[in-house]
Order: sequence, then C-alpha cells, then structure tokens
Amino acid sequence: MSLGIPKRSEDYAAWYQELVKKADLAENSAVRGCMVIKPYGYSIWEKMVEVLDKMFKETGHSNAYFPLFIPKSFLSKEADHVEGFAKECAVVTHYRLKNGENGEGIIVDPEAKLEEELIVRPTSETVIWNTYKNWVQSYRDLPILVNQWANVVRWEMRTRLFLRTTEFLWQEGHTAHATQVEAEAETKQMLEVYAKFAEDFMAIPVLKGVKTANERFAGAVETYCIEALMQDGKALQAGTSHFLGQNFAKAFDVKFTNKEGKIELVWGTSWGVSTRLMGALIMAHSDDEGLVLPPLLAPIQVVIVPIFNNEEQLNSANTYASNIVNQLKKLGISVKYDNRDNLKPGFKFADYELKGVPVRVAIGPRDIQNQTVEIARRDTKEKKVIPLEGVAEAIQNLLNEIQENIFQKALKFRTENTREAKTYTEFKKIIEETEGFVLAHWDGTSETEKKIKEETKATIRCIPLNNTLEEGVCIYSGKKSIQKVVFAKAY
Amino acid sequence: MSLGIPKRSEDYAAWYQELVKKADLAENSAVRGCMVIKPYGYSIWEKMVEVLDKMFKETGHSNAYFPLFIPKSFLSKEADHVEGFAKECAVVTHYRLKNGENGEGIIVDPEAKLEEELIVRPTSETVIWNTYKNWVQSYRDLPILVNQWANVVRWEMRTRLFLRTTEFLWQEGHTAHATQVEAEAETKQMLEVYAKFAEDFMAIPVLKGVKTANERFAGAVETYCIEALMQDGKALQAGTSHFLGQNFAKAFDVKFTNKEGKIELVWGTSWGVSTRLMGALIMAHSDDEGLVLPPLLAPIQVVIVPIFNNEEQLNSANTYASNIVNQLKKLGISVKYDNRDNLKPGFKFADYELKGVPVRVAIGPRDIQNQTVEIARRDTKEKKVIPLEGVAEAIQNLLNEIQENIFQKALKFRTENTREAKTYTEFKKIIEETEGFVLAHWDGTSETEKKIKEETKATIRCIPLNNTLEEGVCIYSGKKSIQKVVFAKAY
Repeated sequence: MSLGIPKRSEDYAAWYQELVKKADLAENSAVRGCMVIKPYGYSIWEKMVEVLDKMFKETGHSNAYFPLFIPKSFLSKEADHVEGFAKECAVVTHYRLKNGENGEGIIVDPEAKLEEELIVRPTSETVIWNTYKNWVQSYRDLPILVNQWANVVRWEMRTRLFLRTTEFLWQEGHTAHATQVEAEAETKQMLEVYAKFAEDFMAIPVLKGVKTANERFAGAVETYCIEALMQDGKALQAGTSHFLGQNFAKAFDVKFTNKEGKIELVWGTSWGVSTRLMGALIMAHSDDEGLVLPPLLAPIQVVIVPIFNNEEQLNSANTYASNIVNQLKKLGISVKYDNRDNLKPGFKFADYELKGVPVRVAIGPRDIQNQTVEIARRDTKEKKVIPLEGVAEAIQNLLNEIQENIFQKALKFRTENTREAKTYTEFKKIIEETEGFVLAHWDGTSETEKKIKEETKATIRCIPLNNTLEEGVCIYSGKKSIQKVVFAKAY
Repeated sequence: MSLGIPKRSEDYAAWYQELVKKADLAENSAVRGCMVIKPYGYSIWEKMVEVLDKMFKETGHSNAYFPLFIPKSFLSKEADHVEGFAKECAVVTHYRLKNGENGEGIIVDPEAKLEEELIVRPTSETVIWNTYKNWVQSYRDLPILVNQWANVVRWEMRTRLFLRTTEFLWQEGHTAHATQVEAEAETKQMLEVYAKFAEDFMAIPVLKGVKTANERFAGAVETYCIEALMQDGKALQAGTSHFLGQNFAKAFDVKFTNKEGKIELVWGTSWGVSTRLMGALIMAHSDDEGLVLPPLLAPIQVVIVPIFNNEEQLNSANTYASNIVNQLKKLGISVKYDNRDNLKPGFKFADYELKGVPVRVAIGPRDIQNQTVEIARRDTKEKKVIPLEGVAEAIQNLLNEIQENIFQKALKFRTENTREAKTYTEFKKIIEETEGFVLAHWDGTSETEKKIKEETKATIRCIPLNNTLEEGVCIYSGKKSIQKVVFAKAY
C-alpha cells in the first residue's frame, strides 16, 4: 500500500518535502518561510532536546534566557558579525497598531516609531556579551557556562522545511573563560558532544573538522563543525562550535582581573544545533516507504496492532496485548497499542512505516492460539514470528540491533561515497555524477575555494581534525598543498 | 548577616525588585522591558515547565510549534481580539539592514519593506486557528489537543521583572472540539490542572473563578482564572483558561462534518500560564532574608556546608558529607555540597537563605565526633541537631513538612486577609488600610465595576466557581445583587 510519497530515485527533493508533510512532521505556515512543527515532528525534536540538554548539563552548563530583540547598534559592534547577519534579519520599527482613519482597517501607528530599531535575534552573541559585561569582574566569576534554548530568525529567500527556514528553533551555548586554552578546550568539548549525539543517538556518522575562513561564523576566530552525508550525496552541516577568541569581549568591553591582579579581556565560545537536525535525521535514514527513526529518538518505539474479524477476537487481542504493553513499559520502552476498529491493519502498517516506528508487533488469532507474536522491524522490513515468552527482552534486543544497524548502514553509505580526486577533471566528474564527499588537495587560499564553488557548486565542508599532512598539489591551481580537504555539494 | 535587600514592611516593591536581582533570578536587559532570566532563576522555571508539561501530557495534550510572526491581517479577523492586542505589539516592517551611504552606519534598507507587516505574537490564537482550518475536515479529526511552549511579546509601558515584561515565556494550549460541552469541559479541566499545580507544587492557595466581561480575554466567551493573594495584600492572576466558543472558528472558517454528515463550526479553548508564575512564587512565600522555595520546585533542595579550620577537618567533612550526599541522591533529593574554602560558612548560610534552599545541613568537627548533623529549615529558620543514622529519611520527611507548612502559612494569610464588606464605606476602608480579598455584593454591571475601579483601584478578581447565590444589594449602586464577588487591588 502506498501512502503517496515520491521515490527517492525519481525526485529526492520532492520525496523529502512530501515525507515531511505526510508523516506529520511539519508544514509551511501562512507566514513566508516560517514552518509549523506538528505534534509528531515536535515529539521527535523534544527527544533530541531532552538528550542534548542532559549532555550539556553533564558538561557543567546551565540554561538561561536572553531577550528576543537586539538593538540595531549592538549588531554593528562586531564588524564581521554585522556583515554576516545584517542582510537577513527581521526589523521591528514600531510598537503599536491603530484603526486607520480612512477606513483602511488596522494600520501601523506612525506615532509609535521606535527611536532605535530592534532586530529579531539571528543569534545572540551581541546581547549576551553585553550582559556578560556586568557579570564578570574577577577571574572568580569565570567560566560562565550558559546555554539557551530559543527561536531565532534569519530572513532566508529560499526555504525548505527544517533545512532552511526563516524562523527555527535551536540551542546556543555561550561561554566565557579566563584563558585561551580553556576556551579552545570548551569549543572542542562541545564539538565532541555534538558528534557523540549525532552518532550515538541520531545514528549518523559525522566528520569532525574545521571550517575554512570563507565558511567561518561571522565573528569567530575558528569554527569547528560536524558534517554528515545525506542519501543523495549532499553534505549537511549538523552542528558548529565556535572559538570566538576575544572578539566579542573586545566589542562589548568584557574584562576581568586575573589572579595576578591584571586586567584582561575574556575569551569566548559559542555553539549551536537547530531543528535542522530534524532534516538530517529524515534524510539520512528514511526510505521510499517513509521515515526510519533510530530507536533512541523515536517517540513511539513499538506499535502493537491487533488483527481481528469480530469483537471476540478483538477482546482476546486486547488482553493478550496489555500483557506485552506492561512488560515493555517496565523496560522503559515506549509503546502504543492501536486497536482502532475503523482502520484496516494494512492501513495501520503503512502508516506506522511512514512514521518510522522501529518495531511493529502484530497479534492475530493464530498468534494467540500459538502463544506467539509477529514482529517486523522498520529498518530492514524483516518479519518473524517469535514466542510470547520473553517477547519484551527480544524486542529490547531488537531495538538495540536496529539502532546499530541504521548507523552501520549510514556509515557504509558514507564510506562508499567518499572518494579521492587527484585532478580537477576527476573532481568535476565525481561532483557531477555521484556527488558524495571528495577528498582533494587544496592550496589553502580563499580564491581557489571560491573558484571551485563557482564552477562546481562544491564547497570545502571541513578540514578534518587531526588531518594527515602530506605534500601534494592543489587540484585547481596546481600550487603546493599540505593536505587534502573534504569537498561536497551541501544543503 | 544581611545581603542587602530592603525589608518588606519598609518598601515591598523595592524588596521584590532587589530580591529578584540579588538571588540571581533575573535582571533588566539593555532592551526596554525585556528581562534576562539568569541561570538560577531559569532553573526554577525549568522545574515548573517539567511539572506542567507532564500534567498536560497526562491529560492527553501534545506539544507543537507555530510561527513567531502573525500577519497583520490575521489579528484583525476577530474583532475583540485585535481590539485587545493592537495597542501593545511589536511590528516587523523590514527584512534587511544595509550600510548607510552617508556614513551614518548600519541603517534599515528602505527597499526591504514587507508588503504586509508582521506582528510578533502577543498570543497565537489567530495563527493557530488559521492552521487548524487545514487540519480539520471530519469529526474524526477532533479533538485537537495541542500546547505550545513559546516566547510572546506585549509592548508594556510599565514593566516589572517577571510580573510584567515586554517579552515573556509561557505555554499556550489551543484545543478544538466537536461540541460545546466538550470544549467547556476542557476549559474547566485545564483550570483544575493550574489550580493543582499552584497549590500542590507552588504551595500557593488559589481561588478558582470566572472573570467578568471587563476582564475577559479578548476573543473569549468566558475566561476562567486562578487568583492568588500576595503578602502585600494584592491579588495576582496566576493562570487563565478561556472558552472561546466558536469565535475563532468563525473568524478563520474552521468547520467539520459531524457524525450525521452536517457541517458545523468547531468549538475552541485556549489556556496559559507564564513566567509571571515566578513573580507569584517569589512574592507569596519569601521573607526579609530572601527567597523561600517550596521543596517541589527548588533546584537545590538541600545544601551541605562543612565547617572547618584546617585541611584535616575539611577532609573529614568531605568524607562525612559524601556519605550523606549519596543517601540523599538515592532518595531522588537534589543536593549540593559546598566546600569552597574562600568563603566563610556565615556567608554561605546567608547566600543559601537568599536563594531559598529549603534545607541546610551543617557539618562541624563536633558533629563528626558525635555522628550528628545540624539541620536548618529555611521556612521557619528552626535548627536542630539530629543523628547521622537515618539522616536522609529525616530530611525527606522535613522536605515534605516544609512543602505543607509553606502552603498552610499562605492559606492562613489568605484566610486572615479575606474580608466581607457590607457597605461601600467599609469596602473603601478595607481596600485602603489592609487590602486583601474583599467579598462584596455587586449588581452585575460593567458600569459599576468600572466606577469602583476608578475610585478605589480595586477590580473584580473573579466570581468564584460554585458561588453561593444569595440576595443582597450592590455596595456601590444599591441595586439588586444575586451574589458576592471577590474584589482586590491586583498586579
């Protein structure tokens, strides 16, 4: 039974768009570029938030909340920062509406014009560093290890559900430190947290690396990132962690007295992941039947569907299922029993496949007679009949197996789609024909990077951490190169 | 030791303001009317969110997320609604900044003017009902039981940390139903959830009632509320639940086919509580030494402070304390061990009193020798020495006792500050001299209500649920009245 999403091989972009809508994850709203995250989609995001929040707290961070609005003058204080964000921001200019006097309905009250315009935060470095100025006097006030869960707005011209929207949800960590060493260690620690989350929970293997100057966060000294590979061979930046040096401390005059009594500028970091991760999760694992969710992030890990022809059979199935439900709950497994009588089992099966529920249990009259159940796994679509005895433990093991299998499958895909190019001709051929990650020598200049982007649309995704240094020649310029970097077309 | 907050009896408003700042709960930001919620304050809010979110889910609701921006035309669709919110909203008119050509720095790009202005949501009924239109066709699509955790903006002229800020955090439930009966039941159910949360977790007794037409939510048919009494005798509306009738369904054309195949308008509710609850929590219980937190919402329930004169004593205290810490953690009690050596115990005691930690445990050399600890409770400031044996259970019992005692204390205060007025002279005397809740007969007209408000600043807080009907005469107009209602000055 088809629930009407296009095949990946026919139109990957349409497949993604329809899957997001049909699986009840999100939809476009009446407001240009802003999405509605529907309850099922939001429940996956909540799982992500729960895990990440725990990881942030375990690494010593606390949550706080800063204003949605940023005075225009704040944005301008860090030169690179305003350059990066001024072009795409929502500007509040007035604070009141009124009834128009000429019958034109409700209008903006021209008398309620703000003296200084407010920007809806595209990111919060400026307003936060302006606050930190008052929080820091002595080295004893450091480090500040704060995270914020918030909505942000960047005025995007071309938007796509989850991947690029005008408003999105995210977390932004903002830390302040007494030393460069400590701030750099924090930057790297948070990159590791993101990589661990991506691999262990999202089941997506990621490359850890450093961005080139072109791709760096506006205002950062160094941007670290994790890069994932989607099934269409395009890369997706899944998280970034920025070493800010003393740039924002300088811009907002954040100084402290060190142990020796000298006054110094504070060192900073910022790091974030967003609802974009939802896009990565969907595109990395799902198939033509719908979502494939890693069990650790699935709001419903197991669905039980009874098969019955009459009320008596339904009643026996209810009793039979409630025993299984209780056993699963005891193991901390989230389970849904769907005994609605207005939908056929086949429709339910297809719907839960579309929604990516990792394990489906079917209970028919014969199962009850034989004291068995039929279990189907979403990732491989394998089905088998197993005994009722020990069913909860068997499902628990299966969930672990699915989590691991999804990761391994994505890893295999990435390995098969990571290629080396020795010449620019080879490079262009790969980028055109198969996409994927391409390792190639680069001369280290922004000029070459920009030319390659113009000609092929591929960008340098990152310079991998602990990259092997090896002499070579740049595929584009023929100049000396000290290392290969990772190119790809990207979302 | 004083940490420098004014006394309540001297200046209640200054006491509140200073307490919020000194206890690290929140501070004013550089953006007019917007606050920064600091990590300690935010951790209390997180506790509230955790409990409420669980209660919402237990009553069948799911979370979702809707856009921050509302097209201006949406606000106008429900006549009362726009009347209520147009006067206090932030308006986005442009989507880009640029470098000014005359050296004036960054300016709003006049070419990036929006065709239709966007309002930063003051509440989300309009954008949500516009979405529901596409979610509902048949009675099978109902009810929709959705909640959103979000930030909202109302342009307030006079702001006060937590109590009234331009931006605040809240949750807003928005449900859609097939019948009036079901929607009314939902409205009342959520009022009960709020009342339970206020009383059982915040330890604040609340009156449940209905608002008069004057005080009703803009767009609602009926507004239910919970009203709490603060220590200065002023009332605080702590939560509202609105029966919307078919008003928003009408405005946004949300219809469904009922079981009989007929097309009907959908019935709606909305309900919300906000960071204003933080203000209520602080003002209901705290004293001149600082915050008093109910244990169920305290981020740190127990603090252990060692008393030592040398490293050897510190080491023994560390060992002694770690045993207690482990026992408390096993019982699910959150505990902090503060063995910083640069601060005196007296300073720590005062600081944790300021921060409202319910139980303090002190460990001195003599305690270790005698196998005892000294415990101090924040609410009554009583101290006693108890044996180490069974200390965790004793603290657990004490936490329960404190939770109950704080509630009883607030209830006693409310009882003592609820008075009846038989005449307008009596009424004015009470409102001027003692404030508190005043029960008085009212003729049921908006005119009388407005006059009383003009003359005394007191408003009708609510008509209590299941109010006793009894004939009488209105204290103001002398006209016939069928019941007494609750008046007070309010935040």
